[in-house]
Amino acid sequence: MATTPELPSELDARLSDPTALIPVIVQEVDSDEVLMLAWMNKAALLATMETGAATYWSRSRSELWVKGATSGNTQQVDSIELDCDSDALLMRVKQKGVACHTGARTCFGKRLS
Amino acid sequence: MATTPELPSELDARLSDPTALIPVIVQEVDSDEVLMLAWMNKAALLATMETGAATYWSRSRSELWVKGATSGNTQQVDSIELDCDSDALLMRVKQKGVACHTGARTCFGKRLS
Repeated sequence: MATTPELPSELDARLSDPTALIPVIVQEVDSDEVLMLAWMNKAALLATMETGAATYWSRSRSELWVKGATSGNTQQVDSIELDCDSDALLMRVKQKGVACHTGARTCFGKRLS
Repeated sequence: MATTPELPSELDARLSDPTALIPVIVQEVDSDEVLMLAWMNKAALLATMETGAATYWSRSRSELWVKGATSGNTQQVDSIELDCDSDALLMRVKQKGVACHTGARTCFGKRLS
């Protein structure tokens, strides 16, 4: 039987509230390009750690969302790091295809002047 | 008289609520290393754009916070980009010294296994 991944205690406590979400910075492991900012609840984080496939909480659809399940633009997880105050994650991934729903490589690019 | 920077309308609308905050991914422009995730309200964003010095909203102290004002570890802004759905920013900076209050170069690094 597969074991459930263990989370650092501060992160586990933060995500024990079923409505709690943590922001996830998603970075391409080969290019270091920042692809997107997404959100995870505890179930999304555990699913990501168990499967190696980036899984987020969709705030617009209020459901778990396996990135690329529909589009094929999946993200294979290379590493996940927690920050110093346990309220943000940095996840490095191998991006298949493009990251953005607009068809762009990344979700960023609209420059403020 | 200096003019106030203009924000894209969707971002301006989002930040018109005085309690609204937007997450900011902070990336070192020379190394592409992700340094931290911080938060801005409209005043912080406008101050950052006007001065070129990264200015955030401190959620713990509930006040504007010029990064490095005390420590000297300032961030000089290179570019700011908005994402596709206008709810996250990617800011590329030149980091003086270290980014993290712990003395580490970045706020990330605690690897989840």
